[in-house]
Amino acid sequence: MDVPVAEPVVRAVSDLVAAGDTGYPASPDEYVAAFSAFAADRWGWQVDATLARVVPDILAGLGAVIEATTPPGDTVIVPSPVYGPFFRNPRLIGRVVEPVALTAGGRLDVPALEEAFAAAVAGGRRASVLLSNPHNPTGVVHTRAELEALAAAAARHGVVVISDEAHAPLVHPGATFVPYVEVDPRGVSVLSAAKTWNLAGFKAAIVVAGPEARAIVDAFPVTLFNGVGHVSLVAQTAAFRDGGPWLDELLPALTRSRDLLVDLVAEHLPLARMQVPESTYLAWVDLSAYGAGDDPAALILERGRVALSRGTDFGPGGEGHARVNFATHPEILTEAVRRIAAALA
Amino acid sequence: MDVPVAEPVVRAVSDLVAAGDTGYPASPDEYVAAFSAFAADRWGWQVDATLARVVPDILAGLGAVIEATTPPGDTVIVPSPVYGPFFRNPRLIGRVVEPVALTAGGRLDVPALEEAFAAAVAGGRRASVLLSNPHNPTGVVHTRAELEALAAAAARHGVVVISDEAHAPLVHPGATFVPYVEVDPRGVSVLSAAKTWNLAGFKAAIVVAGPEARAIVDAFPVTLFNGVGHVSLVAQTAAFRDGGPWLDELLPALTRSRDLLVDLVAEHLPLARMQVPESTYLAWVDLSAYGAGDDPAALILERGRVALSRGTDFGPGGEGHARVNFATHPEILTEAVRRIAAALA
Ligand SMILES: Cc1ncc(COP(=O)(O)O)c(C=O)c1O
Ligand SMILES: Cc1ncc(COP(=O)(O)O)c(C=O)c1O
Repeated sequence: MDVPVAEPVVRAVSDLVAAGDTGYPASPDEYVAAFSAFAADRWGWQVDATLARVVPDILAGLGAVIEATTPPGDTVIVPSPVYGPFFRNPRLIGRVVEPVALTAGGRLDVPALEEAFAAAVAGGRRASVLLSNPHNPTGVVHTRAELEALAAAAARHGVVVISDEAHAPLVHPGATFVPYVEVDPRGVSVLSAAKTWNLAGFKAAIVVAGPEARAIVDAFPVTLFNGVGHVSLVAQTAAFRDGGPWLDELLPALTRSRDLLVDLVAEHLPLARMQVPESTYLAWVDLSAYGAGDDPAALILERGRVALSRGTDFGPGGEGHARVNFATHPEILTEAVRRIAAALA
Repeated sequence: MDVPVAEPVVRAVSDLVAAGDTGYPASPDEYVAAFSAFAADRWGWQVDATLARVVPDILAGLGAVIEATTPPGDTVIVPSPVYGPFFRNPRLIGRVVEPVALTAGGRLDVPALEEAFAAAVAGGRRASVLLSNPHNPTGVVHTRAELEALAAAAARHGVVVISDEAHAPLVHPGATFVPYVEVDPRGVSVLSAAKTWNLAGFKAAIVVAGPEARAIVDAFPVTLFNGVGHVSLVAQTAAFRDGGPWLDELLPALTRSRDLLVDLVAEHLPLARMQVPESTYLAWVDLSAYGAGDDPAALILERGRVALSRGTDFGPGGEGHARVNFATHPEILTEAVRRIAAALA
């Protein structure tokens, strides 16, 4: 996001550097406490600290949960299109990735997922499903009813749902984020301050197991926490603990930016199809009607000098699409959409 | 270390935070360039950037090299006593750890290591050896002749030497650090700014393969660099690039601190046996003559309220020992040794 760093984070980092407190962290406890207070305040979610583990980043957390859930050779089911590492990372640790298409409206297709669950566990194998909640790239916020249906299907087949909640606090008015483990005691949620406060450079994340998934976090290698950097931990702790006012200022600005993008696309890209994102600063735009092939982002970069994320990086269903990051100033966004339109003309 | 953060690091981090440059890193190139300039300047070592990879921290680098060198079930040979994670971490990824005792003088016992190499590769298996260069906890700086003998023995048995050079720049007058890959083209060196500039909280490290070990770094998963935090990368880059003057001020102070410790131990702990550390801020003290059992550090903490590292955490040979960190102010060091003596009296 094109935003200044939240003041409490700036202060925490400068205090730490001034004190020379640049060694290893003593414990994850303050991070867990700050996150838990945030989760209680925003979502009424009472996090049980004994079910929480601090990990180096979201992707490391997802990887550790997969390792603790299925052996190599087993299946990770991935609603697609989705954030590219959901495909790449499980493959790198020897899992078979099985994409299942979202519905035409970009929602979870629970019956299709349940079919994939049944196929994956046939013959006594194990499977997990990686959920993006809210969903990157579409911005869809899964409803409680959708999550309950998913949880029931997963339970019927013994499949574990791993919910990546990186964008959870960035929800626009009208939608409501539901922490996955609040609807499924067998599931696992993974969250971080990285996206919300624009702190991806300060890596850290938290894995919270549902009450029936304690064995998953208990199986984490004892060394996993060693990969967490102290400075990042302190920065993200400050964000969760004291970054509420900054977030409350950010959210309406993000919603305005989203609304501006919707208008700009309607005006300048009449053939584009785009759902209104219910969350975060990402828009998933179907540009296939412009006949720019599977990867319109390449053409847009070359001709328009605007960098979008390539649709094909998001797996099957990403062809002809591009992902726009709209967390920027109105003039930049306006200029970007004009250039995209000119590039595609 | 009890030291203020180097000014160029403070500046780099505050500039980054002020600019909101807190996202993902664009590339590892500046880190590699800064490290290479430092290595050329300090050691005359010309690093080939195509053989270098930036990784999340030293331990992640060692793990990645082990994964790329031996399959699970094979052996990692570890000169012992040594930094505890050399035992724990390879076991966690399914390797068999084989400790080989250092000589009574704390040097590498190359004939004993060669016997272990022969045993480990019998029957067509593979093996690697984890070297601490300089050696934590003894501060021994392996000589060029020792490293050449090790390299020759490793070559005879097809064993790969993985050299952890975390403390390399912190060498006291009289000893000379030799980058391992300078004597063994089949080996791998792993370094970082974390120990030298007291930046363990800003995690990053560099793996440099010898010219015949290119396949090892080429086998690293493409996602490994994703675990490197941008802020840490920038902080360590500033240290390597602009932290020379700070280091040049630190080194004589560390040597004075070492000399003070040697005197204090001679005066207050006449039964202790301690080699004079040739490098870094760690001293390895044999306290067994005080009859405080395998773990004198426990008694010293309890009775004296001085926290030393437990000798038994450093593997076989650590019994009756403790490791002292002497990178602190003379008054604190003096008080600490007095209290240790009182606790053991
Ligand atoms: C859904 C989702 N998960 C995970 C990540 C990466 O998070 P981290 O950097 O903590 O691994 C991102 C980053 O864009 C994301 O959008
Ligand atoms: C020899 C040695 N290697 C590695 C490390 C850990 O380095 P990192 O934090 O980069 O993994 C240390 C830390 O004390 C060390 O002494």
